[in-house]
Amino acid sequence: MVIIKIGGGKDINLKSIIADLKSINDKLIIVHGANALRDELADKLKIERKVITSQSGYTSVFSDEQTIDLMMMSYSGIKNKRIVELCQQNGINAVGLSGLDGKVIQGKRNSGIRVREAGKTKIVRDFSGKPQDININLINLLLNNGYTPVLCVPIIDENNMAINSENDDIVALLHSRLKADKILQLIEAPGYLKDKSDPNSLIKKISRDELEKIENEVDGRMKRKIYALRKLFEFGETTVIISDGRIENPIQNALKENGTVIK
Amino acid sequence: MVIIKIGGGKDINLKSIIADLKSINDKLIIVHGANALRDELADKLKIERKVITSQSGYTSVFSDEQTIDLMMMSYSGIKNKRIVELCQQNGINAVGLSGLDGKVIQGKRNSGIRVREAGKTKIVRDFSGKPQDININLINLLLNNGYTPVLCVPIIDENNMAINSENDDIVALLHSRLKADKILQLIEAPGYLKDKSDPNSLIKKISRDELEKIENEVDGRMKRKIYALRKLFEFGETTVIISDGRIENPIQNALKENGTVIK
Repeated sequence: MVIIKIGGGKDINLKSIIADLKSINDKLIIVHGANALRDELADKLKIERKVITSQSGYTSVFSDEQTIDLMMMSYSGIKNKRIVELCQQNGINAVGLSGLDGKVIQGKRNSGIRVREAGKTKIVRDFSGKPQDININLINLLLNNGYTPVLCVPIIDENNMAINSENDDIVALLHSRLKADKILQLIEAPGYLKDKSDPNSLIKKISRDELEKIENEVDGRMKRKIYALRKLFEFGETTVIISDGRIENPIQNALKENGTVIK
Repeated sequence: MVIIKIGGGKDINLKSIIADLKSINDKLIIVHGANALRDELADKLKIERKVITSQSGYTSVFSDEQTIDLMMMSYSGIKNKRIVELCQQNGINAVGLSGLDGKVIQGKRNSGIRVREAGKTKIVRDFSGKPQDININLINLLLNNGYTPVLCVPIIDENNMAINSENDDIVALLHSRLKADKILQLIEAPGYLKDKSDPNSLIKKISRDELEKIENEVDGRMKRKIYALRKLFEFGETTVIISDGRIENPIQNALKENGTVIK
C-alpha cells in the first residue's frame, strides 16, 4: 500500500505525477490539496479569508459555510475531478471522494474558540475539526475491486456536517488504519529545506528522533506539519519521502529517494 | 429500484426532498442538476455562456474547458457534496460521483459543428456528448453494500475526457440497464403543464402514445425532454412521475401520483 499526498500549489505538475503513477506496483490511495486554486477562486469571488484571534492571542483561519462551499468547488469539484480525469487517461480507474462520501473520512468538529469582541467574551465555532476515523470498508471495497480512491476535504463530523481538516492529519489517519509501506508527499520544493528560501538546503534524511528536535525549532504551519509527521510514525513503521512535485517523472524521482527520506 | 431525478432550479427544496427519501423502501439512485447554481457562479466569475450557430442555422451552447470547470464546481462540487451531506444527516449513506469517477457514466463526444466564421467554414468541437453506457459493476457494488449513488455531470467520453451531457439522457440510460420500477422527476412546477405559464394546466396522465403527439407540439428544450421520456419507455416498462420539488414532503407527494404520471 502506497499513499500519495499531492500538494495543492500552483506549480505542482499534476499531469506528470498522474502519468508516472504506473511506476508503482502496489495498491494506491491519493490524497490531494487545492490551496492555490481555492485562493484564486476566493479572489475571483471576492470571498475574504476570515481570521480570528482567540482571547489567548492565538490566530486561526475561520471556516464558515462559505469557506466550505469554496472548498467543495476547488477541492471536491475542479481539482478532484481533474485528477480523476487524468487518472482515467492513464488507465487508473480512479474514484474521487470527499470525506462526506460514504462517510469515508469521519472527524470531530473543533469546539468553539473564545474571542473578545466589543468588550465582551464570546465563543465562536467554525466548520473545522480533526479526522478521527475512516470508513475502511469502503476503501477496501474500492481497492479490492480495482478502483483507486482519490480523497480530499471536506470531511464529515459527528453530526454529519461538512468540516475542513488538515491533509497531514488525514494521511496520518489513513496510515494508522491501512499501514502504508510508503508515503510519498509531492510538494513545491525538492524536499524538506533547512532554510525555506534556499533550495540547496535540502535535508536528505531525517530520523524519527530528529523530528521532535526539528518540531521545536520551527514555527507556525511547518510546526504542525512536522508534528503530523511525528504522529505518523506512532501508527506503525513506514517510509515517508517528501519530494519534488514540480518536475517530470516525480514518482520515479521520489521512489529513488530523491528528496527528504524519513524512516 | 427507484431513480430520483432532482432538478437544479433555485426553488427546489433539497432539504425536504432528502428528508423525505425515507418514504421509499427500495434501492435508490439519485441524479441531480445544478443549473441555477451554475448560472449564479458563472455570473459571479464573469464566465459568459458561449452560443454557436451552425451553418444550417441551428443554435447550441458551446461547452469549452471553462464550462467543464464551472460544471465541476457547481454540479460535482457544491451541489453533489451538499446533497451527500443532507443524505448523511438523514441516515442515507450516499456516495457522490460524477460520471468520471470509476467511469460510472461513459459517453461519446459529439463530433464537430460546421460554423461559418469570417467568410470561412470551420468545424468547432466542444466538450459535450451523449451517455452510452454505465459502469453497472460499480453501481451494484455500491448498492449491494448499502451505499446510495448520487450522480451528476460531467460524464467521461471515449478518450477519457470530461464532457457535458443531458440528465434526461443519463436517467434513460440508467433505466435501460437497471430497469427502474419508478422514476421520480422533481421539478419547479406541479408536473407537466400544458401551458408553461399556467400552473393550473397540469396534465395528470400521459400515455406512452401521447408522448409522440406532445413531442410534435412543443419546441426547444421541452421537445428534447419529451423525446428523452419517450426513449425511456423503449428500455422497458416503468412509471415516471413528474412532480413538484418545491413543496414539503415532495417524495410522498410524488408517490401519491400527484403530478404528471406517465406509464
